[in-house]
Amino acid sequence: MSAAGDSGAAPPAAVELIRSKRDGGELAPDAIGWVLAGHLARTVGDEQMAALLMAIVWRGMSPGELAAWTGAMVRSGDRLDLSGLDRPTVDKHSTGGVGDKVSLVLAPLVAACGAAVPQLSGRGLGHTGGTLDKLESIAGFRADLDRTEVLRVLDEVGCVICAAGPDLAPADRRLYALRDITGTVESIPLIASSIMSKKVAEGTAALLLDVKVGRGAFMADRDGARVLARTMIGLGRAYGLRTTALLTAMETPLGRAVGNAVEVEESLELLGGGGPLDLRGLVLAEATAMLELAGIAVDPAAALDDGRALATFRQMVRAQGGDPDAPVPVGKTLARVDAVRDGWIERLDARAVGIAAWRLGAGRARAGDPVSPTAGVWCRAKPGEPVRRGETVLELVGDDPARVPAALDALQSAVVIGTRPLPEPAPSLVLERVEA
Amino acid sequence: MSAAGDSGAAPPAAVELIRSKRDGGELAPDAIGWVLAGHLARTVGDEQMAALLMAIVWRGMSPGELAAWTGAMVRSGDRLDLSGLDRPTVDKHSTGGVGDKVSLVLAPLVAACGAAVPQLSGRGLGHTGGTLDKLESIAGFRADLDRTEVLRVLDEVGCVICAAGPDLAPADRRLYALRDITGTVESIPLIASSIMSKKVAEGTAALLLDVKVGRGAFMADRDGARVLARTMIGLGRAYGLRTTALLTAMETPLGRAVGNAVEVEESLELLGGGGPLDLRGLVLAEATAMLELAGIAVDPAAALDDGRALATFRQMVRAQGGDPDAPVPVGKTLARVDAVRDGWIERLDARAVGIAAWRLGAGRARAGDPVSPTAGVWCRAKPGEPVRRGETVLELVGDDPARVPAALDALQSAVVIGTRPLPEPAPSLVLERVEA
Repeated sequence: MSAAGDSGAAPPAAVELIRSKRDGGELAPDAIGWVLAGHLARTVGDEQMAALLMAIVWRGMSPGELAAWTGAMVRSGDRLDLSGLDRPTVDKHSTGGVGDKVSLVLAPLVAACGAAVPQLSGRGLGHTGGTLDKLESIAGFRADLDRTEVLRVLDEVGCVICAAGPDLAPADRRLYALRDITGTVESIPLIASSIMSKKVAEGTAALLLDVKVGRGAFMADRDGARVLARTMIGLGRAYGLRTTALLTAMETPLGRAVGNAVEVEESLELLGGGGPLDLRGLVLAEATAMLELAGIAVDPAAALDDGRALATFRQMVRAQGGDPDAPVPVGKTLARVDAVRDGWIERLDARAVGIAAWRLGAGRARAGDPVSPTAGVWCRAKPGEPVRRGETVLELVGDDPARVPAALDALQSAVVIGTRPLPEPAPSLVLERVEA
Repeated sequence: MSAAGDSGAAPPAAVELIRSKRDGGELAPDAIGWVLAGHLARTVGDEQMAALLMAIVWRGMSPGELAAWTGAMVRSGDRLDLSGLDRPTVDKHSTGGVGDKVSLVLAPLVAACGAAVPQLSGRGLGHTGGTLDKLESIAGFRADLDRTEVLRVLDEVGCVICAAGPDLAPADRRLYALRDITGTVESIPLIASSIMSKKVAEGTAALLLDVKVGRGAFMADRDGARVLARTMIGLGRAYGLRTTALLTAMETPLGRAVGNAVEVEESLELLGGGGPLDLRGLVLAEATAMLELAGIAVDPAAALDDGRALATFRQMVRAQGGDPDAPVPVGKTLARVDAVRDGWIERLDARAVGIAAWRLGAGRARAGDPVSPTAGVWCRAKPGEPVRRGETVLELVGDDPARVPAALDALQSAVVIGTRPLPEPAPSLVLERVEA
C-alpha cells in the first residue's frame, strides 16, 4: 500500500478539497464555487461529490462556507427579477409535514390581502407529499410554467404555485438527486443551503419558514429544528431576504385529509371559511407572519371568511390552466382502520399515516414516478376526539386495492385510544417563533 | 424539501447501508458481502460506495465488520494454493517508505535461507515508490506473470516479486482506485483490509508487516502505527495467517538511493555484502523475523556475505525475463542541493526527498502513468554525517531537466545542518515488535 499522502506535480484538486473537509478544515469560497460548478459541468464526478457530501454531513460547514456554498448554487442558474411587481413579495417554505396543504390556502389568502406570493416548489419525495402533486389533481392544472407565465400569473393573480424551473439553482437540483441515493440528505447545512438557494434565486424579498418538529417531520426534536431555522435565517440575511421562522408541531396529520385530491377538497373547505380548526389556526398564524414580513397591516381572517381568498384561489387555478369548477376526483374506499374499543383518540401518528398514503400511491419512491390523484387517507377521528368500538378512525381511499396491505402494514400501531379525554384543550400548532 | 425519511415500498438497499454506517451502526456480514459484490458487478454505483467509504473513514469498523469486509474481498477473486511447495511460505509487506528497497534484498535472502517468498505487490502510487517499478528498471524484467509462472518461479527460485494479478481480490482493486480519488485512503480498517485481503488471497502461510512510522510514512505517529499493526495481526489470525509486525522509523530515506534504477544499484551493493549500514541492519532484522515465522533457525547474515542471496536474486531476475548482467540504467546529474555551511547533517526529511524523486518522474501521480527508470535522488550525506559548506548533500538524477524546478521546490527545507554531531549513535530503525 502506498498512500498518496502529498500531491504530486498535477494535484487532483477535488480530492484535496475532500481531504481537507474530511480532516475538519474549512473550504475557501473559491474552492466551493469551483467544486459545485465542476459537479454541474460533470468535470467533478458524482463519486467525488458523494464523498465530499458525506464529509460535510460529518464535519458540518462554518457560516462562511455555508454562505459560499449557497451563493454558488444561486449563481449556477438564473435569478428571477420580481422588482416589476407593484406589490411586496413574500413566500413561505415548509420543511414537509403530513397532510400539509397549508400552501394551497395560504398563497391565495396572502395574495388576497395585498402581497405577491411567488411559490416556486420542488416535487415531493418521501412520505410528506408535495404541493404540486396536490394541485395537479385539479383537471388541467399545470405546475410547469415558463418564466413569462410565472410573472404573468403573479402579476394578474397575486400568487403562483408552480415548479421551480431547471434554470433556478441547477447545481442544487443535481446535488439533491445525488444526496437522495447516497444517504447525505440529513445535514442541516446541506438542507438549509438547498432550501435557501432556491428561494434566493426565486427573487422573493421576504420568506416565512415553517419548520416542522416531531415524529412526522424530518426534524424530530425542537433543538435541531431551531438550529435549522437559525441557519436558514442567517442565510436569508446574508442574501438580503427578510426571513422569519415558525417551529410548528408535526405529531399528527394536519387537518383530516392526507393525499392529493383529498387535500384539495379540504383546502376548499378552508377557503370557504370552514375546515378543521387546527389547520385554520395554522394558516392564519402563517398568513399573519407573512403579512408582517410584507409590511401589510391586515387581519387575514376576514379574507378567508368573506370569500376573497377562495376567489383568488379559483383565479390562480384558472390562470394555470385548471378548471376550478371541475369536480375533484374521488377514490374508492379501499379499507378502514376501526377503533378497537371505546375511548378517546390519544395519539394518531403522522409518520405512519404519511407512509400509508405514500404506499397507497399518493407519493413517489423515486423522482419522476407518477402519483395517484385519488390515493390518500381520511382521518375520521383525531387526537382528543371520542370514538366507539368499531367506528372508523382512518379511511384508506384510492383506486389500487393491491396497495392496501402495505399501507395497512404501516398503520399497525398508528392509532392509540385512551380511556379518558386529553387533559387539556389542544394547544396551538405554533411552538415557537424564531427571528433574525 | 422533502426528506425521504423512511423507505417506501421499494427500499434502495445501498442507501440504507450508507445511512446505517453514517449513524454509527454496525453492518451485518451479509450486507457487507452484498455491497462489495454489487460494487464489483457495478450494480452499486461508485457514488454510493464513495459515500459508504467516507462514512467508514468517519465511524470506523468493528472487528466483526472488518473481518467480513476482508473476507468479502478475498472471496471476490481467486486464492492461490501454495501447498504444493516443498518449503514453508512467508511474505513481507511494507506500508511504504522512502528509499525502501528492502524487498529487493529480503526476498532472495530469505529464499536463500530455505523459505519460499511469494511477494505479490501492488503498483506504487504517491511519494513512496513501488518495488515493481524498481525491478522493472532491469532490462527485460517482467512483473506481470500469470499464475503458472508465479508458481514455477517460486518453485525453482524460492522467491518471486511480481504484480498481484487481476484475479486476486478484484473488489479491493476496484475499491482502491475509488478511494484514491475520493479522499478515503486514510482509514485504518480500510488500509488493513486492503493489505490483508491480498495477502490472504496470495496464499502465504506467514507474513511480516513492516509498518513505517514518521514524517516520511503514512503513519506519522507510533500509536497509530501500533493500532494499524494490531488490526492487521488480528485479521491475519482470523484468516489463519501467522503475522508479526515491526514498527520501523521513516524519518529519513533508507540508505542513500531514492528512485528506481538507483535503488537497484544500492540493492546490489547490499547483496554483495556491502551497502549502507542502516539498510543492512533493517534487512537482517526483517529476515530474522521472517525466518522465525517460517520456523527456520538460520542466521541470515551469512547468506548476505557469502553471495547466496545475490545468486538467488540473479536467478529470480532471470526467471522473470530479466538480464542480471545488463548494466543498470544511469540518469544524468540534473541538479544538486549543497550544504549551506559547515556542520553535521541534523535532519534529512524523508517525505521531501520522496516527493522530489516522485516529481523527477520516479513515481506516478495517477494509476497507469509510466515512470522513469533513471529518475531519483542520491543522498550523498545523511543524518549524523559531517559536511563542509558547498559539498553536495542531495544529487538529483534523471533524464528530464524540465522536472527539476518542481523537485527542488519540494526540497527547500529538506536539509537541516547542525553545528555539532548527533548526541548519540544512530539507533536501530526497528522501534518495536508487535505480535499476535
